[in-house]
Amino acid sequence: MRVSRLFGRTLRAAPAEAEHAGHQLVLRAGLARQIQAGSFALLPLGMAALRRIEAIMHEELAAIDGQEFRTPIVQAATSWQRSGRYADYGPLMLRAEDRSGRALVIAPTHEEAVAELAAHEITSYRQLPQIIYQIHTKYRDEGRAKGGLMRLREFTMLDAYSLGADTASLDQAYEALAGAFTRIFARCGLDVVAVEASAGEMGGGEPREYMALSASGEDTLVLCDACGYAANSEVAERTASDGCVRCNAPLRLARGVEIGHIFKLGTRFSQALGANYLGVDGAEHPIVMGSYGIGLERMLQIIVEQHADAQGIAWPQAVAPLDVQLLRLGQGEDVRAAAEAAYADLCSAGLRVLYDDREETAGVKFNDADLLGLPLRVVISERLLKLGQVELKRRGGAAHTVAREQLVAAALQPT
Amino acid sequence: MRVSRLFGRTLRAAPAEAEHAGHQLVLRAGLARQIQAGSFALLPLGMAALRRIEAIMHEELAAIDGQEFRTPIVQAATSWQRSGRYADYGPLMLRAEDRSGRALVIAPTHEEAVAELAAHEITSYRQLPQIIYQIHTKYRDEGRAKGGLMRLREFTMLDAYSLGADTASLDQAYEALAGAFTRIFARCGLDVVAVEASAGEMGGGEPREYMALSASGEDTLVLCDACGYAANSEVAERTASDGCVRCNAPLRLARGVEIGHIFKLGTRFSQALGANYLGVDGAEHPIVMGSYGIGLERMLQIIVEQHADAQGIAWPQAVAPLDVQLLRLGQGEDVRAAAEAAYADLCSAGLRVLYDDREETAGVKFNDADLLGLPLRVVISERLLKLGQVELKRRGGAAHTVAREQLVAAALQPT
Repeated sequence: MRVSRLFGRTLRAAPAEAEHAGHQLVLRAGLARQIQAGSFALLPLGMAALRRIEAIMHEELAAIDGQEFRTPIVQAATSWQRSGRYADYGPLMLRAEDRSGRALVIAPTHEEAVAELAAHEITSYRQLPQIIYQIHTKYRDEGRAKGGLMRLREFTMLDAYSLGADTASLDQAYEALAGAFTRIFARCGLDVVAVEASAGEMGGGEPREYMALSASGEDTLVLCDACGYAANSEVAERTASDGCVRCNAPLRLARGVEIGHIFKLGTRFSQALGANYLGVDGAEHPIVMGSYGIGLERMLQIIVEQHADAQGIAWPQAVAPLDVQLLRLGQGEDVRAAAEAAYADLCSAGLRVLYDDREETAGVKFNDADLLGLPLRVVISERLLKLGQVELKRRGGAAHTVAREQLVAAALQPT
Repeated sequence: MRVSRLFGRTLRAAPAEAEHAGHQLVLRAGLARQIQAGSFALLPLGMAALRRIEAIMHEELAAIDGQEFRTPIVQAATSWQRSGRYADYGPLMLRAEDRSGRALVIAPTHEEAVAELAAHEITSYRQLPQIIYQIHTKYRDEGRAKGGLMRLREFTMLDAYSLGADTASLDQAYEALAGAFTRIFARCGLDVVAVEASAGEMGGGEPREYMALSASGEDTLVLCDACGYAANSEVAERTASDGCVRCNAPLRLARGVEIGHIFKLGTRFSQALGANYLGVDGAEHPIVMGSYGIGLERMLQIIVEQHADAQGIAWPQAVAPLDVQLLRLGQGEDVRAAAEAAYADLCSAGLRVLYDDREETAGVKFNDADLLGLPLRVVISERLLKLGQVELKRRGGAAHTVAREQLVAAALQPT
């Protein structure tokens, strides 16, 4: 990909409304652009990082036999009336009417749709347990959409659902999903704490939130360094006013952002929507459900926030939108030809390269490379070319030169 | 993936409302399930095929330097008022109001969003031309949603947009996209004809439709076998009443389904939404746009319709949801162990295997294997096991046996 033709430009300074580091970097690096309050377009670099996060999610869900499916976003209000949440959700749920006056919902979550679908597809205990998931768009008409990708109205969610015959099966699925979520966060380079949480409108048991520690966080976490106890302050305040509920050691407060949430739903939705299976005993039983979600754009912004320095982003290798930023410094024919050749060679070696082919100064190109923060920077300059050399620099590391013909081998070396 | 735990069951017979072969197969094979009129959930086998179609699209778009981005689905009405289409679209466009009474649109297409985004990101002729695309959800409040995945209200669309400085650049992009679309259809095994079409509400020049020949088609195509002229009858009727407009040979009529549509938009949307660039001449000019779309679920159903026999689907290898259907026939310990071992071996070799581990009769399993139509069927039975053999059969080909230890090598052989 050539920077000259990249859709999405870098900004020298972040707009004034971007208060927090992650939000500023998302805008300055051209990962996403605000369209309306709470409504962002993902630009190619942001979209590429999102796709890498998705790929990790697909792998980890497949490892626990998760099956990808997809339910519509625009849903009939009748499903939500059956579960009772059509009234519960209030103004957070966007509603519409179709051409014949039928009430519709732009779905904020998909428990109703899953229960309805399970009622069609599951008939016998022999088919259970199952884990199904999708990575798709959700909509919540947030009153205070702000913070860049932190609190969007429209966002992408990994939403997984477990379907089981009994609570033992639910417990197993809950642990399997919790394990998958932990591995997803670790592989994406995220520093996350699992905390006790409240269930909100979802209901169900053992709600657990995955909180990323972040100065931009709207939640307060109560953490015990002595025994590892962690809870959202909404929950913790009720049980602990001065010391840890488990070990009575002093508690520490920290700011956090929820990036995932898991629930043992039980049979609330399957009973309301008729999702039953025929048991070994020959009788009908409601399917025991769990619900497990991660917000992707929010996760993307927190990754950027947690992996940055004063110059810009320092992407974790696993989710970097591209591998290499290749800089051409100088306008001569020789350096142009050398840079084009390096671009072709690096691409042929399977590396994903962002090639800064613009007629800009070295200063502009170095600043943009630091801002975009791809794992490896390669410089082709007139000065180095006379020495038969190119320069390599890992983001955050020191620059070193190698002979031109060693470029691909050096670029492929693990960090 | 084990059939016993597959989310989505096969049906012996298609529901009465499914008139056409493709629709019947989609339902019978458990690729998708109707939720409401015009609203379908994709079940795991359908979703897997959709993902393979997407992967081919990503490859072909990358090959012409297409950049993936994503715009929100829920959009402010103001953008559509600026282009004039808020009124034009009529009841086909689903509308809503947010919590503060602001008018919203669930977008049926994204020209307005792209022009607004281009106004932010493109400043100079040096950045042009560009091709950007997304594969994402669209919504059209169809009055007569029917035919399974053929005419959905909510559907997935590949929508690509070209941004150029002048009409010569638009012509180049149009040809590049037309080439990419042709390669996508060919790789997916689709029999498609490109025809002259009408522009509809999109406006713009040289509208071209990609029509799949299909008995279920709602369009009539006018085809000339002598010179290759092809047009939608909406357009052709105006120019040709008795013979081919090009060569005067007799015309043939055929039923077709539109699966793609490309348009030279020109500057309609960039002018309306202020998407300008600074030219070499130092003056502001509107960006010259093109718009290019393919409907994915419809494409999926047509692939199934075009690749089927009386027994069921016969997936093209490139878009088959999985590679192998492995059947265990018999209940004994030996045959169970052999089937599990074969499943593990085939998966380890990188094949994607659907393992029919159910306690069903051979007849049920053979019928389901023919219905699902994966490229290779492997049978592990008690009878064959005593001979140290397994059976392989390509969909539509003849069965043959090989020694058990030759299974993986035989399965990996190209068709």
